[in-house]
Amino acid sequence: MVEPRPIELKGRPVGNGAFPLICTPLVGRTRDAVLAEVDAVLPKKPDVLEWRVDFFAALGDTAQVIDTARAVRDRVGPVPVMFTRRSSLEGGERIALAESQVVQLYVDVCASRLVDLIDYETGNAADDFRRLRATSREHGIELIGSYHNFRATPDAASLAAKFALAHRLDADIAKVAVMPQGPSDVLTLLGATYEASQSLPIPLISMSMGPYGSLSRMVGFVYGSALTWAVGKSSSAPGQVPIEDLRAVLATIRKTVLGA
Amino acid sequence: MVEPRPIELKGRPVGNGAFPLICTPLVGRTRDAVLAEVDAVLPKKPDVLEWRVDFFAALGDTAQVIDTARAVRDRVGPVPVMFTRRSSLEGGERIALAESQVVQLYVDVCASRLVDLIDYETGNAADDFRRLRATSREHGIELIGSYHNFRATPDAASLAAKFALAHRLDADIAKVAVMPQGPSDVLTLLGATYEASQSLPIPLISMSMGPYGSLSRMVGFVYGSALTWAVGKSSSAPGQVPIEDLRAVLATIRKTVLGA
Repeated sequence: MVEPRPIELKGRPVGNGAFPLICTPLVGRTRDAVLAEVDAVLPKKPDVLEWRVDFFAALGDTAQVIDTARAVRDRVGPVPVMFTRRSSLEGGERIALAESQVVQLYVDVCASRLVDLIDYETGNAADDFRRLRATSREHGIELIGSYHNFRATPDAASLAAKFALAHRLDADIAKVAVMPQGPSDVLTLLGATYEASQSLPIPLISMSMGPYGSLSRMVGFVYGSALTWAVGKSSSAPGQVPIEDLRAVLATIRKTVLGA
Repeated sequence: MVEPRPIELKGRPVGNGAFPLICTPLVGRTRDAVLAEVDAVLPKKPDVLEWRVDFFAALGDTAQVIDTARAVRDRVGPVPVMFTRRSSLEGGERIALAESQVVQLYVDVCASRLVDLIDYETGNAADDFRRLRATSREHGIELIGSYHNFRATPDAASLAAKFALAHRLDADIAKVAVMPQGPSDVLTLLGATYEASQSLPIPLISMSMGPYGSLSRMVGFVYGSALTWAVGKSSSAPGQVPIEDLRAVLATIRKTVLGA
Protein backbone atom coordinates (compact mmCIF):
# COMPACT_ATOMS: atom_id res chain seq x y z
CA MET A 1 0.00 0.00 0.00
CA VAL A 2 1.06 3.56 -0.61
CA GLU A 3 2.78 5.09 2.34
CA PRO A 4 3.55 8.57 1.18
CA ARG A 5 6.19 10.57 2.89
CA PRO A 6 4.50 12.71 5.53
CA ILE A 7 5.06 16.42 5.81
CA GLU A 8 6.77 17.02 9.14
CA LEU A 9 7.27 20.06 11.29
CA LYS A 10 10.09 19.87 13.80
CA GLY A 11 10.23 16.13 13.26
CA ARG A 12 6.54 15.48 13.89
CA PRO A 13 4.08 14.63 11.13
CA VAL A 14 1.52 17.36 10.47
CA GLY A 15 -2.10 16.48 11.25
CA ASN A 16 -0.99 13.48 13.34
CA GLY A 17 -0.06 11.78 10.10
CA ALA A 18 -3.49 12.27 8.48
CA PHE A 19 -3.24 11.50 4.81
CA PRO A 20 -3.69 13.43 2.71
CA LEU A 21 -3.50 16.68 4.62
CA ILE A 22 -6.20 19.18 3.72
CA CYS A 23 -5.14 22.79 3.25
CA THR A 24 -7.49 25.74 2.90
CA PRO A 25 -6.33 29.01 1.37
CA LEU A 26 -6.65 32.49 2.86
CA VAL A 27 -7.01 35.06 0.11
CA GLY A 28 -8.28 38.17 1.92
CA ARG A 29 -7.08 41.59 0.75
CA THR A 30 -7.07 43.08 4.23
CA ARG A 31 -6.18 42.01 7.78
CA ASP A 32 -9.87 41.91 8.67
CA ALA A 33 -10.72 39.88 5.61
CA VAL A 34 -7.95 37.36 6.30
CA LEU A 35 -9.02 37.00 9.92
CA ALA A 36 -12.65 36.59 8.90
CA GLU A 37 -11.55 33.77 6.60
CA VAL A 38 -9.63 32.17 9.44
CA ASP A 39 -12.73 32.33 11.63
CA ALA A 40 -14.89 30.84 8.88
CA VAL A 41 -12.45 28.09 8.01
CA LEU A 42 -11.13 26.94 11.40
CA PRO A 43 -14.34 25.14 12.45
CA LYS A 44 -13.90 22.99 9.34
CA LYS A 45 -10.64 21.72 10.83
CA PRO A 46 -8.19 22.02 7.96
CA ASP A 47 -4.80 20.43 8.64
CA VAL A 48 -2.93 23.42 7.21
CA LEU A 49 -3.81 27.02 6.31
CA GLU A 50 -2.12 28.71 3.38
CA TRP A 51 -1.94 32.48 3.50
CA ARG A 52 -1.72 33.58 -0.12
CA VAL A 53 -0.09 36.89 0.65
CA ASP A 54 -0.05 37.99 -3.00
CA PHE A 55 -3.75 38.75 -2.44
CA PHE A 56 -2.89 40.98 0.53
CA ALA A 57 -3.12 44.68 -0.36
CA ALA A 58 -0.56 45.82 2.24
CA LEU A 59 2.03 43.31 1.04
CA GLY A 60 4.58 46.11 0.73
CA ASP A 61 4.29 47.00 4.42
CA THR A 62 6.23 44.36 6.32
CA ALA A 63 4.93 45.52 9.70
CA GLN A 64 1.35 44.98 8.55
CA VAL A 65 2.19 41.57 7.14
CA ILE A 66 3.87 40.51 10.40
CA ASP A 67 1.02 41.95 12.44
CA THR A 68 -1.52 40.01 10.39
CA ALA A 69 0.59 36.83 10.59
CA ARG A 70 0.63 37.25 14.39
CA ALA A 71 -3.13 37.73 14.52
CA VAL A 72 -3.58 34.61 12.39
CA ARG A 73 -1.25 32.66 14.69
CA ASP A 74 -3.15 33.84 17.77
CA ARG A 75 -6.36 32.53 16.28
CA VAL A 76 -5.19 29.23 14.81
CA GLY A 77 -2.98 28.08 17.67
CA PRO A 78 -1.08 24.97 16.59
CA VAL A 79 -2.57 24.65 13.09
CA PRO A 80 0.36 24.98 10.68
CA VAL A 81 0.40 28.10 8.52
CA MET A 82 1.94 28.12 5.04
CA PHE A 83 3.10 31.52 3.80
CA THR A 84 2.99 31.94 0.03
CA ARG A 85 3.56 34.78 -2.37
CA ARG A 86 2.51 33.14 -5.61
CA SER A 87 4.36 34.73 -8.49
CA SER A 88 2.15 36.28 -11.17
CA LEU A 89 4.25 34.29 -13.65
CA GLU A 90 2.83 31.17 -12.05
CA GLY A 91 -0.76 32.21 -11.59
CA GLY A 92 -0.57 34.56 -8.60
CA GLU A 93 -1.90 38.08 -8.24
CA ARG A 94 0.06 40.95 -9.72
CA ILE A 95 1.92 42.81 -6.99
CA ALA A 96 3.89 46.05 -6.93
CA LEU A 97 6.99 44.66 -5.19
CA ALA A 98 10.31 43.90 -6.83
CA GLU A 99 11.51 40.32 -6.31
CA SER A 100 14.23 41.54 -3.93
CA GLN A 101 11.54 43.05 -1.72
CA VAL A 102 9.56 39.83 -1.85
CA VAL A 103 12.60 37.85 -0.74
CA GLN A 104 13.25 40.30 2.10
CA LEU A 105 9.62 39.96 3.17
CA TYR A 106 10.01 36.16 3.26
CA VAL A 107 13.20 36.58 5.33
CA ASP A 108 11.45 38.88 7.81
CA VAL A 109 8.44 36.56 8.08
CA CYS A 110 10.76 33.59 8.66
CA ALA A 111 12.57 35.53 11.38
CA SER A 112 9.23 36.23 13.07
CA ARG A 113 8.67 32.48 13.29
CA LEU A 114 4.95 33.13 12.97
CA VAL A 115 4.57 30.70 10.06
CA ASP A 116 5.48 27.03 9.70
CA LEU A 117 6.06 26.60 6.00
CA ILE A 118 6.92 28.88 3.12
CA ASP A 119 6.38 28.26 -0.58
CA TYR A 120 8.76 29.69 -3.16
CA GLU A 121 8.85 28.87 -6.87
CA THR A 122 11.83 26.88 -8.09
CA GLY A 123 11.73 29.00 -11.24
CA ASN A 124 12.94 32.05 -9.31
CA ALA A 125 16.58 33.17 -9.33
CA ALA A 126 18.80 30.50 -7.81
CA ASP A 127 20.38 33.01 -5.42
CA ASP A 128 16.98 34.03 -4.08
CA PHE A 129 15.94 30.41 -3.64
CA ARG A 130 19.21 29.63 -1.84
CA ARG A 131 18.72 32.57 0.49
CA LEU A 132 15.23 31.44 1.44
CA ARG A 133 16.51 27.88 1.88
CA ALA A 134 19.08 29.14 4.37
CA THR A 135 16.82 31.50 6.26
CA SER A 136 13.91 29.05 6.48
CA ARG A 137 16.21 26.33 7.81
CA GLU A 138 17.72 28.74 10.34
CA HIS A 139 14.26 29.38 11.76
CA GLY A 140 12.94 25.83 11.60
CA ILE A 141 10.51 26.58 8.79
CA GLU A 142 9.77 24.06 6.01
CA LEU A 143 10.49 25.17 2.46
CA ILE A 144 8.22 24.09 -0.40
CA GLY A 145 9.86 24.36 -3.82
CA SER A 146 6.98 24.82 -6.24
CA TYR A 147 6.17 24.80 -9.93
CA HIS A 148 2.85 25.92 -11.44
CA ASN A 149 1.60 25.93 -14.99
CA PHE A 150 -1.89 27.37 -15.47
CA ARG A 151 -1.90 26.81 -19.24
CA ALA A 152 -0.93 23.21 -19.86
CA THR A 153 0.48 19.95 -18.53
CA PRO A 154 4.10 19.37 -19.52
CA ASP A 155 4.97 15.79 -20.50
CA ALA A 156 5.92 13.19 -17.91
CA ALA A 157 9.66 13.74 -18.27
CA SER A 158 9.26 17.50 -17.76
CA LEU A 159 7.12 16.94 -14.67
CA ALA A 160 9.73 14.54 -13.30
CA ALA A 161 12.33 17.27 -13.84
CA LYS A 162 10.23 19.78 -11.89
CA PHE A 163 9.91 17.48 -8.88
CA ALA A 164 13.61 16.68 -9.07
CA LEU A 165 14.58 20.35 -9.32
CA ALA A 166 12.89 21.14 -6.03
CA HIS A 167 14.86 18.35 -4.39
CA ARG A 168 18.10 19.45 -6.04
CA LEU A 169 17.52 22.96 -4.69
CA ASP A 170 17.26 21.36 -1.25
CA ALA A 171 13.57 22.11 -0.71
CA ASP A 172 11.91 20.10 2.05
CA ILE A 173 8.83 19.49 -0.09
CA ALA A 174 8.32 19.49 -3.87
CA LYS A 175 5.09 20.89 -5.30
CA VAL A 176 3.84 20.66 -8.89
CA ALA A 177 0.49 22.12 -10.04
CA VAL A 178 -0.47 22.03 -13.70
CA MET A 179 -3.47 22.60 -15.95
CA PRO A 180 -4.88 19.70 -17.96
CA GLN A 181 -6.21 20.22 -21.48
CA GLY A 182 -8.22 17.02 -21.27
CA PRO A 183 -8.76 14.02 -19.01
CA SER A 184 -5.56 12.33 -20.18
CA ASP A 185 -3.38 15.11 -18.79
CA VAL A 186 -4.69 14.35 -15.31
CA LEU A 187 -3.36 10.82 -15.68
CA THR A 188 0.01 12.21 -16.77
CA LEU A 189 0.25 14.32 -13.60
CA LEU A 190 -0.75 11.42 -11.36
CA GLY A 191 1.68 9.06 -13.05
CA ALA A 192 4.55 11.54 -12.77
CA THR A 193 3.76 12.08 -9.10
CA TYR A 194 3.84 8.35 -8.45
CA GLU A 195 7.17 8.00 -10.26
CA ALA A 196 8.63 10.89 -8.27
CA SER A 197 7.37 9.35 -5.03
CA GLN A 198 9.38 6.24 -5.87
CA SER A 199 12.56 8.13 -6.70
CA LEU A 200 12.73 11.19 -4.44
CA PRO A 201 13.24 11.12 -0.66
CA ILE A 202 11.07 14.18 0.13
CA PRO A 203 7.31 14.62 0.52
CA LEU A 204 5.45 15.68 -2.60
CA ILE A 205 2.41 17.81 -3.29
CA SER A 206 0.85 17.73 -6.71
CA MET A 207 -2.37 18.52 -8.44
CA SER A 208 -3.95 18.93 -11.80
CA MET A 209 -6.18 22.05 -11.83
CA GLY A 210 -9.50 23.02 -13.37
CA PRO A 211 -12.60 20.83 -13.68
CA TYR A 212 -10.88 17.66 -14.89
CA GLY A 213 -7.99 18.26 -12.55
CA SER A 214 -10.27 18.22 -9.54
CA LEU A 215 -10.07 14.43 -9.80
CA SER A 216 -6.42 14.68 -8.77
CA ARG A 217 -7.39 16.67 -5.70
CA MET A 218 -9.38 13.61 -4.61
CA VAL A 219 -7.19 10.69 -5.68
CA GLY A 220 -3.73 12.29 -5.74
CA PHE A 221 -2.80 10.92 -2.34
CA VAL A 222 -2.90 7.38 -3.72
CA TYR A 223 -0.18 8.52 -6.13
CA GLY A 224 2.00 10.10 -3.47
CA SER A 225 0.69 13.63 -3.00
CA ALA A 226 0.74 14.43 0.71
CA LEU A 227 -1.54 17.48 0.74
CA THR A 228 -4.59 18.67 -1.14
CA TRP A 229 -6.27 22.07 -1.21
CA ALA A 230 -9.94 22.44 -0.49
CA VAL A 231 -12.27 25.39 -0.41
CA GLY A 232 -12.97 26.51 3.15
CA LYS A 233 -14.45 29.90 2.38
CA SER A 234 -12.80 31.03 -0.86
CA SER A 235 -11.01 29.20 -3.62
CA SER A 236 -7.44 30.08 -4.60
CA ALA A 237 -7.18 27.99 -7.75
CA PRO A 238 -9.59 26.41 -10.26
CA GLY A 239 -10.98 22.97 -9.43
CA GLN A 240 -10.77 23.14 -5.65
CA VAL A 241 -13.56 21.16 -3.99
CA PRO A 242 -15.49 22.29 -0.88
CA ILE A 243 -13.78 20.84 2.17
CA GLU A 244 -16.83 18.92 3.37
CA ASP A 245 -17.30 17.22 -0.01
CA LEU A 246 -13.60 16.49 -0.32
CA ARG A 247 -13.44 14.96 3.12
CA ALA A 248 -16.35 12.62 2.34
CA VAL A 249 -14.74 11.51 -0.92
CA LEU A 250 -11.37 10.97 0.76
CA ALA A 251 -13.00 8.87 3.47
CA THR A 252 -14.58 6.60 0.85
CA ILE A 253 -11.33 6.30 -1.09
CA ARG A 254 -9.31 5.59 2.05
CA LYS A 255 -11.80 2.91 3.04
CA THR A 256 -11.81 1.16 -0.33
CA VAL A 257 -8.24 1.73 -1.53
CA LEU A 258 -6.35 1.61 1.73
CA GLY A 259 -8.84 -0.42 3.76
CA ALA A 260 -8.54 2.27 6.44
CA MET B 1 -16.70 18.02 -21.53
CA VAL B 2 -16.92 14.27 -21.75
CA GLU B 3 -20.14 13.06 -23.24
CA PRO B 4 -19.78 9.31 -23.16
CA ARG B 5 -21.90 7.20 -25.41
CA PRO B 6 -24.97 6.14 -23.44
CA ILE B 7 -26.09 2.56 -23.17
CA GLU B 8 -29.44 2.33 -24.90
CA LEU B 9 -32.24 -0.20 -24.85
CA LYS B 10 -34.61 -0.11 -27.80
CA GLY B 11 -33.25 3.30 -28.72
CA ARG B 12 -33.73 4.89 -25.30
CA PRO B 13 -30.86 5.65 -22.92
CA VAL B 14 -30.86 3.52 -19.79
CA GLY B 15 -31.43 5.37 -16.51
CA ASN B 16 -32.80 8.39 -18.39
CA GLY B 17 -29.24 9.09 -19.46
CA ALA B 18 -27.78 9.08 -15.93
CA PHE B 19 -24.06 8.93 -16.11
CA PRO B 20 -22.44 6.73 -15.13
CA LEU B 21 -25.04 4.04 -14.71
CA ILE B 22 -24.76 2.08 -11.47
CA CYS B 23 -25.12 -1.68 -11.68
CA THR B 24 -25.48 -4.02 -8.71
CA PRO B 25 -24.73 -7.73 -9.02
CA LEU B 26 -26.97 -10.62 -8.01
CA VAL B 27 -24.90 -13.60 -6.92
CA GLY B 28 -27.37 -15.84 -5.10
CA ARG B 29 -27.00 -19.62 -5.45
CA THR B 30 -30.76 -20.28 -5.34
CA ARG B 31 -33.94 -18.67 -6.64
CA ASP B 32 -34.82 -17.53 -3.13
CA ALA B 33 -31.37 -16.07 -2.56
CA VAL B 34 -31.45 -14.19 -5.86
CA LEU B 35 -34.89 -12.79 -5.12
CA ALA B 36 -33.83 -11.79 -1.62
CA GLU B 37 -30.93 -9.87 -3.19
CA VAL B 38 -33.33 -8.17 -5.57
CA ASP B 39 -35.52 -7.13 -2.67
CA ALA B 40 -32.51 -5.80 -0.72
CA VAL B 41 -31.02 -3.96 -3.66
CA LEU B 42 -34.04 -2.44 -5.39
CA PRO B 43 -34.67 0.25 -2.74
CA LYS B 44 -31.15 1.51 -3.47
CA LYS B 45 -32.29 2.27 -7.00
CA PRO B 46 -29.55 0.79 -9.16
CA ASP B 47 -29.83 1.66 -12.85
CA VAL B 48 -29.10 -1.91 -13.91
CA LEU B 49 -29.05 -5.32 -12.21
CA GLU B 50 -26.59 -7.98 -13.29
CA TRP B 51 -27.56 -11.55 -12.63
CA ARG B 52 -24.31 -13.47 -12.39
CA VAL B 53 -25.79 -16.81 -13.29
CA ASP B 54 -22.49 -18.66 -12.86
CA PHE B 55 -23.23 -18.41 -9.11
CA PHE B 56 -26.64 -20.07 -9.63
CA ALA B 57 -26.59 -23.70 -8.53
CA ALA B 58 -29.36 -24.80 -10.93
CA LEU B 59 -27.61 -23.30 -13.94
CA GLY B 60 -27.94 -26.60 -15.78
CA ASP B 61 -31.73 -26.56 -15.52
CA THR B 62 -32.95 -24.09 -18.11
CA ALA B 63 -36.52 -24.15 -16.79
CA GLN B 64 -35.30 -23.06 -13.34
CA VAL B 65 -33.16 -20.32 -14.85
CA ILE B 66 -36.05 -18.99 -16.90
CA ASP B 67 -38.40 -19.24 -13.94
CA THR B 68 -35.98 -17.27 -11.78
CA ALA B 69 -35.45 -14.70 -14.54
CA ARG B 70 -39.22 -14.27 -14.73
CA ALA B 71 -39.48 -13.83 -10.96
CA VAL B 72 -36.71 -11.22 -11.10
CA ARG B 73 -38.48 -9.41 -13.92
CA ASP B 74 -41.76 -9.42 -12.02
CA ARG B 75 -40.04 -7.76 -9.07
CA VAL B 76 -37.86 -5.21 -10.87
CA GLY B 77 -40.35 -4.01 -13.45
CA PRO B 78 -38.58 -1.73 -15.92
CA VAL B 79 -35.11 -1.86 -14.34
CA PRO B 80 -32.81 -3.40 -16.99
CA VAL B 81 -31.42 -6.84 -16.19
CA MET B 82 -28.05 -7.98 -17.48
CA PHE B 83 -27.60 -11.75 -17.78
CA THR B 84 -24.03 -12.97 -17.36
CA ARG B 85 -22.35 -16.30 -17.13
CA ARG B 86 -18.82 -15.21 -16.27
CA SER B 87 -16.36 -17.80 -17.55
CA SER B 88 -14.13 -19.33 -14.89
CA LEU B 89 -11.23 -18.50 -17.21
CA GLU B 90 -12.09 -14.84 -16.64
CA GLY B 91 -12.81 -14.88 -12.93
CA GLY B 92 -16.25 -16.49 -12.76
CA GLU B 93 -17.42 -19.46 -10.71
CA ARG B 94 -16.61 -22.96 -11.90
CA ILE B 95 -19.68 -24.56 -13.45
CA ALA B 96 -20.48 -28.08 -14.64
CA LEU B 97 -21.84 -27.08 -18.08
CA ALA B 98 -20.04 -27.49 -21.38
CA GLU B 99 -19.72 -24.27 -23.37
CA SER B 100 -22.26 -25.54 -25.91
CA GLN B 101 -24.79 -25.86 -23.07
CA VAL B 102 -23.95 -22.36 -21.86
CA VAL B 103 -24.55 -20.94 -25.33
CA GLN B 104 -27.85 -22.79 -25.60
CA LEU B 105 -28.85 -21.38 -22.21
CA TYR B 106 -28.07 -17.85 -23.43
CA VAL B 107 -30.16 -18.55 -26.56
CA ASP B 108 -33.10 -19.76 -24.50
CA VAL B 109 -32.87 -16.82 -22.11
CA CYS B 110 -32.74 -14.40 -25.04
CA ALA B 111 -35.81 -16.07 -26.55
CA SER B 112 -37.64 -15.60 -23.24
CA ARG B 113 -37.00 -11.86 -23.54
CA LEU B 114 -36.87 -11.68 -19.76
CA VAL B 115 -33.48 -9.92 -19.74
CA ASP B 116 -32.30 -6.73 -21.43
CA LEU B 117 -28.58 -7.28 -21.87
CA ILE B 118 -26.31 -10.29 -22.05
CA ASP B 119 -22.56 -10.38 -21.43
CA TYR B 120 -20.37 -12.88 -23.28
CA GLU B 121 -16.57 -12.92 -23.31
CA THR B 122 -14.90 -11.99 -26.58
CA GLY B 123 -12.33 -14.68 -25.82
CA ASN B 124 -14.88 -17.43 -26.43
CA ALA B 125 -15.08 -19.32 -29.71
CA ALA B 126 -15.95 -16.98 -32.58
CA ASP B 127 -18.83 -19.19 -33.70
CA ASP B 128 -20.39 -19.06 -30.24
CA PHE B 129 -20.02 -15.30 -30.06
CA ARG B 130 -21.55 -14.93 -33.52
CA ARG B 131 -24.50 -17.08 -32.54
CA LEU B 132 -25.18 -15.00 -29.45
CA ARG B 133 -24.79 -11.84 -31.51
CA ALA B 134 -27.48 -13.07 -33.89
CA THR B 135 -29.88 -14.35 -31.26
CA SER B 136 -29.56 -11.31 -29.00
CA ARG B 137 -30.22 -8.99 -31.93
CA GLU B 138 -33.21 -11.04 -33.02
CA HIS B 139 -34.76 -10.55 -29.58
CA GLY B 140 -33.81 -6.91 -29.08
CA ILE B 141 -31.26 -7.68 -26.38
CA GLU B 142 -27.99 -5.73 -26.06
CA LEU B 143 -24.78 -7.74 -26.30
CA ILE B 144 -21.78 -6.81 -24.16
CA GLY B 145 -18.49 -8.19 -25.48
CA SER B 146 -16.27 -8.50 -22.43
CA TYR B 147 -12.67 -9.13 -21.43
CA HIS B 148 -11.49 -9.74 -17.85
CA ASN B 149 -8.05 -10.26 -16.43
CA PHE B 150 -7.94 -10.92 -12.68
CA ARG B 151 -4.14 -11.22 -12.59
CA ALA B 152 -2.71 -8.15 -14.28
CA THR B 153 -3.26 -5.11 -16.46
CA PRO B 154 -2.12 -5.60 -20.06
CA ASP B 155 -0.35 -2.63 -21.63
CA ALA B 156 -2.27 0.20 -23.30
CA ALA B 157 -2.02 -1.29 -26.80
CA SER B 158 -3.37 -4.64 -25.60
CA LEU B 159 -6.25 -2.93 -23.83
CA ALA B 160 -7.03 -0.96 -26.98
CA ALA B 161 -7.11 -4.26 -28.88
CA LYS B 162 -9.59 -5.73 -26.38
CA PHE B 163 -12.00 -2.81 -26.76
CA ALA B 164 -11.60 -2.95 -30.55
CA LEU B 165 -12.18 -6.72 -30.65
CA ALA B 166 -15.58 -6.33 -29.01
CA HIS B 167 -16.52 -3.79 -31.67
CA ARG B 168 -15.16 -5.96 -34.47
CA LEU B 169 -17.28 -8.86 -33.19
CA ASP B 170 -20.26 -6.51 -33.52
CA ALA B 171 -20.97 -6.24 -29.79
CA ASP B 172 -23.22 -3.34 -28.80
CA ILE B 173 -21.02 -2.52 -25.80
CA ALA B 174 -17.34 -3.26 -25.08
CA LYS B 175 -16.30 -4.14 -21.53
CA VAL B 176 -12.76 -4.43 -20.14
CA ALA B 177 -12.01 -5.28 -16.49
CA VAL B 178 -8.42 -5.80 -15.36
CA MET B 179 -6.39 -6.14 -12.18
CA PRO B 180 -3.78 -3.49 -11.33
CA GLN B 181 -0.50 -4.46 -9.72
CA GLY B 182 0.03 -0.91 -8.49
CA PRO B 183 -1.49 2.55 -8.77
CA SER B 184 0.05 3.16 -12.20
CA ASP B 185 -1.92 0.32 -13.77
CA VAL B 186 -5.14 2.12 -12.86
CA LEU B 187 -3.96 5.07 -14.95
CA THR B 188 -3.19 2.73 -17.85
CA LEU B 189 -6.75 1.38 -17.79
CA LEU B 190 -8.27 4.86 -17.59
CA GLY B 191 -6.07 6.16 -20.39
CA ALA B 192 -6.89 3.21 -22.65
CA THR B 193 -10.59 3.69 -21.97
CA TYR B 194 -10.37 7.34 -22.93
CA GLU B 195 -8.51 6.51 -26.15
CA ALA B 196 -11.09 3.86 -27.03
CA SER B 197 -13.90 6.33 -26.33
CA GLN B 198 -12.34 8.63 -28.94
CA SER B 199 -11.95 5.93 -31.57
CA LEU B 200 -14.85 3.48 -31.20
CA PRO B 201 -18.52 4.26 -31.93
CA ILE B 202 -20.00 2.04 -29.20
CA PRO B 203 -20.50 2.57 -25.45
CA LEU B 204 -17.72 1.31 -23.21
CA ILE B 205 -17.58 -0.16 -19.74
CA SER B 206 -14.23 -0.48 -18.02
CA MET B 207 -12.75 -0.87 -14.60
CA SER B 208 -9.60 -1.64 -12.78
CA MET B 209 -10.29 -4.06 -9.92
CA GLY B 210 -9.05 -4.55 -6.36
CA PRO B 211 -8.27 -1.84 -3.84
CA TYR B 212 -6.35 0.51 -6.14
CA GLY B 213 -8.74 -0.21 -8.96
CA SER B 214 -11.68 1.01 -6.92
CA LEU B 215 -10.57 4.51 -7.96
CA SER B 216 -11.58 3.64 -11.52
CA ARG B 217 -15.04 2.67 -10.32
CA MET B 218 -15.41 6.27 -9.12
CA VAL B 219 -13.68 8.31 -11.84
CA GLY B 220 -13.97 5.96 -14.85
CA PHE B 221 -16.95 7.79 -16.26
CA VAL B 222 -14.81 10.87 -16.87
CA TYR B 223 -12.69 8.62 -19.12
CA GLY B 224 -15.63 7.22 -21.05
CA SER B 225 -16.90 4.27 -19.02
CA ALA B 226 -20.70 4.32 -19.12
CA LEU B 227 -21.44 1.96 -16.22
CA THR B 228 -19.92 1.12 -12.87
CA TRP B 229 -20.64 -1.73 -10.50
CA ALA B 230 -21.45 -1.07 -6.85
CA VAL B 231 -22.22 -3.31 -3.94
CA GLY B 232 -25.94 -3.41 -3.23
CA LYS B 233 -25.99 -6.46 -0.99
CA SER B 234 -23.08 -8.64 -2.13
CA SER B 235 -19.96 -7.92 -4.11
CA SER B 236 -19.19 -9.80 -7.33
CA ALA B 237 -15.62 -8.56 -7.87
CA PRO B 238 -12.86 -7.07 -5.74
CA GLY B 239 -12.89 -3.31 -5.20
CA GLN B 240 -16.61 -2.68 -5.58
CA VAL B 241 -17.80 0.21 -3.42
CA PRO B 242 -21.09 0.27 -1.47
CA ILE B 243 -23.71 1.93 -3.65
CA GLU B 244 -24.46 4.72 -1.16
CA ASP B 245 -20.77 5.70 -0.89
CA LEU B 246 -20.27 5.46 -4.63
CA ARG B 247 -23.28 7.64 -5.33
CA ALA B 248 -21.99 10.36 -2.99
CA VAL B 249 -18.56 10.32 -4.60
CA LEU B 250 -20.04 10.41 -8.10
CA ALA B 251 -22.21 13.39 -7.15
CA THR B 252 -19.15 15.33 -5.97
CA ILE B 253 -17.17 14.42 -9.07
CA ARG B 254 -20.05 15.32 -11.38
CA LYS B 255 -20.41 18.67 -9.63
CA THR B 256 -16.73 19.58 -9.80
CA VAL B 257 -15.68 17.95 -13.06
CA LEU B 258 -18.80 18.35 -15.14
CA GLY B 259 -20.33 21.29 -13.28
CA ALA B 260 -23.57 19.29 -13.16
